[in-house]
Amino acid sequence: MKPASVDVLGEARHASPLPEARFPQPGPCGAVGEAVVPALTAWPGGRMPDDLLLFERAGPRQQLYFEPSKTRAAIVTCGGLCPGLNNVIRSVTRELLLSYGVPSVLGIVGGYRGLDPSRGEPPVELTEDFVEDIHHDGGTVIQTSRGPVDLKVAVDFLRERKIDILFTVGGDGTQRGAKALWDEARAQGYELSVVGIPKTIDNDVRHVERTFGYATAVMEAVHVIRSAHTEARSVSNGVSVVKLMGRHAGFIAAGATVASQEVNFCLVPEQPFALEGEGGFLAALERRLQRKDHAVVVVAEGAGQEHLESSGGRDASGNLLLGDIGLFLRDAIDRYFKTRGVEAVVRYIDPSYLIRGCPANTEDALLCDRLGRLAVHAAMSGRTGMVISYLNGQFAHVPIDMISGGGRQLEPAGELWRAVLSATGQPPQFQKE
Amino acid sequence: MKPASVDVLGEARHASPLPEARFPQPGPCGAVGEAVVPALTAWPGGRMPDDLLLFERAGPRQQLYFEPSKTRAAIVTCGGLCPGLNNVIRSVTRELLLSYGVPSVLGIVGGYRGLDPSRGEPPVELTEDFVEDIHHDGGTVIQTSRGPVDLKVAVDFLRERKIDILFTVGGDGTQRGAKALWDEARAQGYELSVVGIPKTIDNDVRHVERTFGYATAVMEAVHVIRSAHTEARSVSNGVSVVKLMGRHAGFIAAGATVASQEVNFCLVPEQPFALEGEGGFLAALERRLQRKDHAVVVVAEGAGQEHLESSGGRDASGNLLLGDIGLFLRDAIDRYFKTRGVEAVVRYIDPSYLIRGCPANTEDALLCDRLGRLAVHAAMSGRTGMVISYLNGQFAHVPIDMISGGGRQLEPAGELWRAVLSATGQPPQFQKE
Amino acid sequence: MKPASVDVLGEARHASPLPEARFPQPGPCGAVGEAVVPALTAWPGGRMPDDLLLFERAGPRQQLYFEPSKTRAAIVTCGGLCPGLNNVIRSVTRELLLSYGVPSVLGIVGGYRGLDPSRGEPPVELTEDFVEDIHHDGGTVIQTSRGPVDLKVAVDFLRERKIDILFTVGGDGTQRGAKALWDEARAQGYELSVVGIPKTIDNDVRHVERTFGYATAVMEAVHVIRSAHTEARSVSNGVSVVKLMGRHAGFIAAGATVASQEVNFCLVPEQPFALEGEGGFLAALERRLQRKDHAVVVVAEGAGQEHLESSGGRDASGNLLLGDIGLFLRDAIDRYFKTRGVEAVVRYIDPSYLIRGCPANTEDALLCDRLGRLAVHAAMSGRTGMVISYLNGQFAHVPIDMISGGGRQLEPAGELWRAVLSATGQPPQFQKE
Amino acid sequence: MKPASVDVLGEARHASPLPEARFPQPGPCGAVGEAVVPALTAWPGGRMPDDLLLFERAGPRQQLYFEPSKTRAAIVTCGGLCPGLNNVIRSVTRELLLSYGVPSVLGIVGGYRGLDPSRGEPPVELTEDFVEDIHHDGGTVIQTSRGPVDLKVAVDFLRERKIDILFTVGGDGTQRGAKALWDEARAQGYELSVVGIPKTIDNDVRHVERTFGYATAVMEAVHVIRSAHTEARSVSNGVSVVKLMGRHAGFIAAGATVASQEVNFCLVPEQPFALEGEGGFLAALERRLQRKDHAVVVVAEGAGQEHLESSGGRDASGNLLLGDIGLFLRDAIDRYFKTRGVEAVVRYIDPSYLIRGCPANTEDALLCDRLGRLAVHAAMSGRTGMVISYLNGQFAHVPIDMISGGGRQLEPAGELWRAVLSATGQPPQFQKE
Repeated sequence: MKPASVDVLGEARHASPLPEARFPQPGPCGAVGEAVVPALTAWPGGRMPDDLLLFERAGPRQQLYFEPSKTRAAIVTCGGLCPGLNNVIRSVTRELLLSYGVPSVLGIVGGYRGLDPSRGEPPVELTEDFVEDIHHDGGTVIQTSRGPVDLKVAVDFLRERKIDILFTVGGDGTQRGAKALWDEARAQGYELSVVGIPKTIDNDVRHVERTFGYATAVMEAVHVIRSAHTEARSVSNGVSVVKLMGRHAGFIAAGATVASQEVNFCLVPEQPFALEGEGGFLAALERRLQRKDHAVVVVAEGAGQEHLESSGGRDASGNLLLGDIGLFLRDAIDRYFKTRGVEAVVRYIDPSYLIRGCPANTEDALLCDRLGRLAVHAAMSGRTGMVISYLNGQFAHVPIDMISGGGRQLEPAGELWRAVLSATGQPPQFQKE
Repeated sequence: MKPASVDVLGEARHASPLPEARFPQPGPCGAVGEAVVPALTAWPGGRMPDDLLLFERAGPRQQLYFEPSKTRAAIVTCGGLCPGLNNVIRSVTRELLLSYGVPSVLGIVGGYRGLDPSRGEPPVELTEDFVEDIHHDGGTVIQTSRGPVDLKVAVDFLRERKIDILFTVGGDGTQRGAKALWDEARAQGYELSVVGIPKTIDNDVRHVERTFGYATAVMEAVHVIRSAHTEARSVSNGVSVVKLMGRHAGFIAAGATVASQEVNFCLVPEQPFALEGEGGFLAALERRLQRKDHAVVVVAEGAGQEHLESSGGRDASGNLLLGDIGLFLRDAIDRYFKTRGVEAVVRYIDPSYLIRGCPANTEDALLCDRLGRLAVHAAMSGRTGMVISYLNGQFAHVPIDMISGGGRQLEPAGELWRAVLSATGQPPQFQKE
Repeated sequence: MKPASVDVLGEARHASPLPEARFPQPGPCGAVGEAVVPALTAWPGGRMPDDLLLFERAGPRQQLYFEPSKTRAAIVTCGGLCPGLNNVIRSVTRELLLSYGVPSVLGIVGGYRGLDPSRGEPPVELTEDFVEDIHHDGGTVIQTSRGPVDLKVAVDFLRERKIDILFTVGGDGTQRGAKALWDEARAQGYELSVVGIPKTIDNDVRHVERTFGYATAVMEAVHVIRSAHTEARSVSNGVSVVKLMGRHAGFIAAGATVASQEVNFCLVPEQPFALEGEGGFLAALERRLQRKDHAVVVVAEGAGQEHLESSGGRDASGNLLLGDIGLFLRDAIDRYFKTRGVEAVVRYIDPSYLIRGCPANTEDALLCDRLGRLAVHAAMSGRTGMVISYLNGQFAHVPIDMISGGGRQLEPAGELWRAVLSATGQPPQFQKE
Repeated sequence: MKPASVDVLGEARHASPLPEARFPQPGPCGAVGEAVVPALTAWPGGRMPDDLLLFERAGPRQQLYFEPSKTRAAIVTCGGLCPGLNNVIRSVTRELLLSYGVPSVLGIVGGYRGLDPSRGEPPVELTEDFVEDIHHDGGTVIQTSRGPVDLKVAVDFLRERKIDILFTVGGDGTQRGAKALWDEARAQGYELSVVGIPKTIDNDVRHVERTFGYATAVMEAVHVIRSAHTEARSVSNGVSVVKLMGRHAGFIAAGATVASQEVNFCLVPEQPFALEGEGGFLAALERRLQRKDHAVVVVAEGAGQEHLESSGGRDASGNLLLGDIGLFLRDAIDRYFKTRGVEAVVRYIDPSYLIRGCPANTEDALLCDRLGRLAVHAAMSGRTGMVISYLNGQFAHVPIDMISGGGRQLEPAGELWRAVLSATGQPPQFQKE
């Protein structure tokens, strides 16, 4: 049983400049360098599974591959906004400059586009002053964009600037692009460390228990749900529909439902639902109104796609363009009650752009700081082609390949979805009959 | 290797009324009934430790010890305020009433005192209406108090009211008291299930990764630190001292330091510190002012007790009365700079009562809901003498004996303290020279 | 020069039960009973205008028309939600019950509809307990609806229940309805006091400096604008469009623009704008992107109606259904930049239902409490057919007729609009050329 | 009847560069240049008082005394922190640079001390970039200090740097100092415009209806009171004491009391109170506990000084050092209940440094922006020795002499204090018997 194998650039020969006190001693928790983290912590049958996956524990290493005083690093942020981007940028920069004494950290401007001089702006030098207060702001001070970059152009760009380490902050597509950059660099014999910090507000990355931005998204969603609840309660037969983020997984919808305790129906991509029929959503909603005179519906953007015709188009990140389930649902509810002769008051709120741009809350601030600093430790040790993951109470190194190709979803009989069912009182499934 | 043994009242013979869909199927996560959770997830030497402690996984059981329609439950909250108490009360009540159909849930008024008719008020009936909106408020709707209760009186009280289950929400002393109640009941042949939800804003319970209220405390502390930072920055040689909770462990101080990134010195109980001398705290503070003209100091209430004379007294919960390190430090700093002829402006903030009374933030709301509902599942199955713990990404059953007698502390070379050192830039230790 | 005449039911013969200390003594501010408030406080020509309008000052009267122990009152909330409704309900109720000792206060349920037994639910008794914590919640605990009620039915309803005073919380239409109720009651010889508290989140009532809910709306709008700004700044050529409330007046848009200082274009109903041409909005927006790479646009819902075709329809309150300027603008911007070959990223946020449902902030809480209590004083003294207004630093009595038929608007050369022009740097007008 | 006379440096000969659209046309509100604002708006006897004081209305003038392209300005912030300082600095700077095209704005560092090269740091150049985001932060980016400066040294300092205009942001002492600077400059024949923006979180400046920072202070105080209320309610006989700012006037205590509606006793400097006796505060508190089992007490720092021995000392601003009424009251309550054999739980919170350092809320942001810009208009027109005041719905010019020497206080029978009495239900006075 060995931990998932992480690529390394070569032997780590340089002593770390970090003070001795920062390295765990051998003991109950083990010295960092040799500890592992189990991928699963719910073990059926009362014992450790035979095929249990293990990951390297993240942390500073006493021997480094890169000599700090000669190392140059860069960081890039890609894809949609997510609370905490600036926190990550700041902690990566400060750990490099202040803890390791690395002389230069570049901010690539505008996502991968910034690695192509013909398309983007030149990078900015990230200094202690530059990053001082950026964690108070949402968004990303080095901007972002969607879409890939020509690999050869990008590797040339990095090589010319003698970049040793590239930190990639982005989602699945970004990390696959990061892996491709590392493959291309390796093919050229260019010793580039590429270390990713997974970014998805949806919290749906495999082998990652919690991605940054998720906690803030839930917090802001709860604020919106409170207004939605108020709107619904303040009239007769009030129905508020709130659309939340979640393309393939309903973690935000579920988390906000359980945290607010004011949602009566939570619809997620993992659970297709029937609209019509006695067992369908609309009839359940009508029964709720009869009993309580109001209802709050939360729907993840990726839910109910079976009811929509997709255009088949894709955005610049390659994501399939989803039909708008929020507007669809609002109209379906409106129509249903008109048909039934019920005077319902339906309100619709789509707070996505409000939520994505918020500054990180303290929970995410804590997470981002550690993800950023641990990414620096991994890269300085010569690791590459990997991401930092918070997992089962620890931070671990996960090879990029292992997070690609299909994300995490809500388990239908898992603890969080059970909490949703208890909080809403909704039936386990909406079926035609 | 067996999981830590949890007491049970007897054979579970009643079928659960919960819908089938809420029970995990055998599969990768295992059916709930038989799964275990490892107590540690950082494994030295790259493999599972031989003596790894395991806990039962929490969750609903298909067979119950108590017949829901004949079960009577009660809940009590003890000790100091902590964000989330009302959330726990609400979720316990709703899970009992709505999911299980239990006919009566009593709220014991004013902590353990409420179990003694000669000292407290009579209990209140907790209904769906009563608990509807209580999670929006801090504090506890059934009040709290410090101190123990006569065991025989309390067991008589519960027995007379035919209480089958008592949920105890409180800290170390409360849970030891809960264990004693269960022991007394058992001695009397009275089949009482006592299930605890550990409550400590300090987050220092053994075998618990995260206690409720901690996330809110960190969030509110960061709000205070921001003002403290502003005060310090807005004058020349400004020093702000913020005292935070943490009698035996510095988790709140450390968490707030890392989340805010605006603290320059973080003092915790785990790390004694010298004030005087070149390597002492005061000289380090002076160097900071010389370099940056301002400083923010966060000190946990239990830090630096070596500098104070204790009165030796104890509060009603039996906690040793601590000397006030916050005022001590403020005065020591004032005096030091006066002696050195430096015109420093020292501000002191003690926000404890502001923080404790806040409503749960969304992170804690999520945690409290699940702790409350899982406590109900455990009790209905006949488990007793245990607490619910969030641990390594799972919820587990931990025998009360295993959380008593000495709590969790910050590991000096652990990940969170390392993050504190990086965020503050403070030396690993303040030593006389 | 006499103050605007307020209707009274008759001679006030009952001594007020309020303690003497609550009545202003004759002195610099004058005893309440005889003081007046000027309608304007910017006096051209350096002296009081000859035709200056005056209003009675609000406050408790020493003589009452109604005998408190025999008085019955009711309160009704109408129209769309607005932060502070519950605060008004609570303060009206408490002032009646606790200060005056009135025996019964009814809450009419669901707006004017609740005055018609064939259409609405029966009223609820408002008690000290019922209103205890309602001010922490947005919305209205007695629900609301749009639309009028049959006058005779409503007056019968009130008469049967021996209601002496009706407090009407609502907008222009509601207050006109209130006046009609009073006229109908008078015609029947039924001595009904109708006192209104003007409710419009838009802050556009004549002879009212500040309506409740406005301050909260601006606060929440600024929170949204901050995310919009972040979205725009974090990409190249980012444009965020935020639609805010304001059917006939741009006070919310203007206030949020000045408070946030992050808006570059503020479009309001008072200022028609050209889209096309060198002097049009779109060219100005393009120049902004060239200079700063991002822009934030705030548009009031009633702005730019000249660009839209109205359906001619009206909602249940009789308001003309407006075309959606937000979506129109978003699409016009999108199209414009596509035509110009500029790769702009346009985000659109419509936070109306999020904002309306928020609890009152402290500014509005302060205002609502006083409006509610002063409305009680006015009614107890026998005044009727009037509303309470905050005006020029004082509270005053304004006859309903004087606030009807056309509201307040932003003055194009007034102080607030000037602040908008300074904060945005936008040209005074967008003209075709 | 003429408006209060404001000093001017001389004839205004330069045409303003502001666009024509920003100048009010003659009309109902009058052209700015000639309009006046009445000092009082509650007129006893139903008519304008004969001796009504009038002030010049603030606003841009079409003719300027200073030629913008040759003008140099400076700004200084003095005394304790107050929310909104950075907003004022930013709006003054932007109005000067962007609207008028003034070439240079200096930030004097560290209050008046910064006008003395032997004691302070050199000034900083305030640019558009420098002030871009400062309004999101509390405190003052140009620092502050207490105490005066040698007049000749300060005038020399300004003269050497060819400063034409000095904006002084500070309290009573600061503005008296500002007046002295102007007197000294005038005596030297140096044409210096000194325009103040009154700063007192206590909101107690004569002829100013609302000072900036007050609204934020009330908002933050309400947040603290909510926790205090929770603490009190969650135990038996819980008493929470909150000390708020207010040296000579209880506006913050009163505003927070009315806004929160959770305070039972509000003690202010304007109303001396007896502690002992049947009519005293302590007996009233005991009766409250008997009735409701908990109480919240808010006390302004300047209240009850009759119970304390003053040291007679003064701080660097010349303010008399007050005895600590908060700690005194806490101890008096503790002692009283111990004597009476009542087991009360008394909590004390002093949030002053938390509140002062907060960023401006939207209400204050709106106010600060306008105060800052109107101060610029006044100074550019050649006015001097005056402050900008928000008064009765307008902004006006008030000569410094008229705000000095004794501030505004709560009127005992005024509208706000009446609201306090209604909200708390406390007796009008606490008298020995």
